[in-house]
Amino acid sequence: MAFLNDNYLKLKAGYLFPEISRRVKAFCDANPEAAKRLIRCGIGDVTEPLPPAAITAMRKAVDEMAARETFHGYGPEQGYEWLRAAIAQNDFRDRGADIADDEIFVSDGTKCDTGNILDILGHKNKIAVSDPVYPVYVDTNVMAGHTGEANEAGKYARLVYLPCTPRNGFIPEPPKRHVDVIYLCSPNNPTGAIATREQLEAWVKYALEHKAVILFDAAYEAYITDPALPHSIYEIPGARECAIEFRSCSKSGGFTGVRCAFAVVPKTLRGATKAGELHPLHPLWLRRMATKFNGVSYITQRGAEALYSTEGKAQVRALIEHYMGNAQVLREGATKAGLKVHGGVNAPYLWGKTPRGITSWQAFDKILSEANVVITPGSGFGSKGEGYVRISAFNSRANAEEVARRLQAYKWRSNVTRR
Amino acid sequence: MAFLNDNYLKLKAGYLFPEISRRVKAFCDANPEAAKRLIRCGIGDVTEPLPPAAITAMRKAVDEMAARETFHGYGPEQGYEWLRAAIAQNDFRDRGADIADDEIFVSDGTKCDTGNILDILGHKNKIAVSDPVYPVYVDTNVMAGHTGEANEAGKYARLVYLPCTPRNGFIPEPPKRHVDVIYLCSPNNPTGAIATREQLEAWVKYALEHKAVILFDAAYEAYITDPALPHSIYEIPGARECAIEFRSCSKSGGFTGVRCAFAVVPKTLRGATKAGELHPLHPLWLRRMATKFNGVSYITQRGAEALYSTEGKAQVRALIEHYMGNAQVLREGATKAGLKVHGGVNAPYLWGKTPRGITSWQAFDKILSEANVVITPGSGFGSKGEGYVRISAFNSRANAEEVARRLQAYKWRSNVTRR
Repeated sequence: MAFLNDNYLKLKAGYLFPEISRRVKAFCDANPEAAKRLIRCGIGDVTEPLPPAAITAMRKAVDEMAARETFHGYGPEQGYEWLRAAIAQNDFRDRGADIADDEIFVSDGTKCDTGNILDILGHKNKIAVSDPVYPVYVDTNVMAGHTGEANEAGKYARLVYLPCTPRNGFIPEPPKRHVDVIYLCSPNNPTGAIATREQLEAWVKYALEHKAVILFDAAYEAYITDPALPHSIYEIPGARECAIEFRSCSKSGGFTGVRCAFAVVPKTLRGATKAGELHPLHPLWLRRMATKFNGVSYITQRGAEALYSTEGKAQVRALIEHYMGNAQVLREGATKAGLKVHGGVNAPYLWGKTPRGITSWQAFDKILSEANVVITPGSGFGSKGEGYVRISAFNSRANAEEVARRLQAYKWRSNVTRR
Repeated sequence: MAFLNDNYLKLKAGYLFPEISRRVKAFCDANPEAAKRLIRCGIGDVTEPLPPAAITAMRKAVDEMAARETFHGYGPEQGYEWLRAAIAQNDFRDRGADIADDEIFVSDGTKCDTGNILDILGHKNKIAVSDPVYPVYVDTNVMAGHTGEANEAGKYARLVYLPCTPRNGFIPEPPKRHVDVIYLCSPNNPTGAIATREQLEAWVKYALEHKAVILFDAAYEAYITDPALPHSIYEIPGARECAIEFRSCSKSGGFTGVRCAFAVVPKTLRGATKAGELHPLHPLWLRRMATKFNGVSYITQRGAEALYSTEGKAQVRALIEHYMGNAQVLREGATKAGLKVHGGVNAPYLWGKTPRGITSWQAFDKILSEANVVITPGSGFGSKGEGYVRISAFNSRANAEEVARRLQAYKWRSNVTRR
């Protein structure tokens, strides 16, 4: 009798975004007229075309695949050397972070990487996540059997939840207790908060003291404009001994439909065997990639490389400025609509507190049905997200302006009364 | 203290192909003149350009990504509906196999899928693999903790090895004992053997009786030319209740550098919880894909769709005929060189028995150093592969002919004596 992985049966309801899709589809099917004016500020998907440098590079790469002399079959599972070198130089060494080319592992997505990294970690780790949290961190730990059952609030036994609130600027402090693995995300999804240098220093200090590993998700790094803020955890001394960093081209180059990301696993980072011996994690991740992955499309990797050219960098910058202009417009609109708005400054997400008494899903349903705008309910990210909504700045300027107009016209109270 | 996954430390040496790369590189560095005439018949990587239909479709897809109106961001994690429909219709329903569009899960590789499928299976399954075997099946089970340590012959405790020999035509029979999960690969990598309808019927019968799951790897399906041979396990009645099938565009459309494959998980296939309750596996795989994967590049999926167009099918057929022509040439050359050759008829791999007394790695080193041809040592696929070599037909015709010439000139005995 073939046994299934029982841990999957512990997972609560649908993964957040499929659930949103389901509700939106039901609404649109029932309201075809309203569906026509629907604007999506929910899922964090980019809307603007790829940077021209990436398009040019990918056209050339497709052409190469059409001729025997320039055809590319299997590439290295961990990515082509020219892409790993461009990443290590531009994203790290140029910022003073000491990262070697072969510490870069090119992949097809940060969602994949943050899930797959559990493959090389043991099952006995005490794992900390923030609350609210990007659901993938939690769900992949549930699937791997690292949790107990969920309680009514959706919190899983055996995970350590670190609250993110206005009081700590939505960046959790290191806990008093011991944990072995910590997920940190900065710029934060969903709250749009950014970890300062001091906050990261406190985490690195904690991790070194506890021989813990920080899984640092910096998929939104490109949105940092404040020069005082760190872009990489490796800007903090000691991080090479305690952190794995995840980055993505999805939100920098708009690659959500093209698929390219990377993980950084320093060779100086070690984990313990059950017997307590320390071993480097780099060869384990290399082995995982070689055995369970076959590399990213050559065409995609050429597109990603082009993001690091002079023109590519300027085009990425323009793309970021476009989305951050949207964020500014949306901040004003949402504030006038009576939401207390956090984020949206060095990050493409706004984190809005709903008026008292209105839950996240109530706000979601009302904004969908009455403003015909899709946002993301904060409670989908954890219990401390209740009473918040996430508004994504990924849109055209015209749509961002229209959403701001619709939100400004919004009357929470009268709507509450109408029900 | 962050714990690592100790199971990785059980893995033997390098994964086969990286080890081959290492030896080839060492040889080439030491022998730059010989390196110039090196021909690779080792790793199963295609060499010919992509079918023109795929190139045209991918060029168009890149252009779409350059304009806001036609831009594609995140696609469905399980693949676009148009691709799933083309696959289900052409590869299954047109052959009388009852597979629905939403039972197709588009992925970035069969290596990935055959590794990742373990995510949704439990840890208590008794697992059977063939010997010789594609190393990924074994290594991913080692990583998942489903085995004990390896013995000196490289066999892991707790796995059930099913011998493949000339006696059973290199397709294992169902064992007398009970197993829960069985990996079958047909056309077989590495032996080039094909399971007949009767052999698959015996396996489906066994799996239904034992409530076992067959993981059927048909990545080389396109190479089947004999009309009597089944292309899919779903051509066998009852397989929808006991089998997951894996397919790839890598070896049909030459997509090794572009990355597109798919898994078929029928909704009627069930696995047992620890408590013995039966649950369908389809929702578990859907959940895994939604949580740990973000879909295949839009550009790649458009290329894959084009393989199913009228012209695409003809171009794939021509590509297959090219490689199978190579196989014919290589069969003749290898036979004249004194190898007893199996395979290479409905599969792109030849499985050659070395002369008595010459091990697989000895043959590898000798053919590399003296004929400057890279082949794959059969022992890298398991103990029953000792004394065999795998020769890949993926090459230009000129290279295949040159390899055949060099092999024919080969003197095993004199070489043995020279050492």
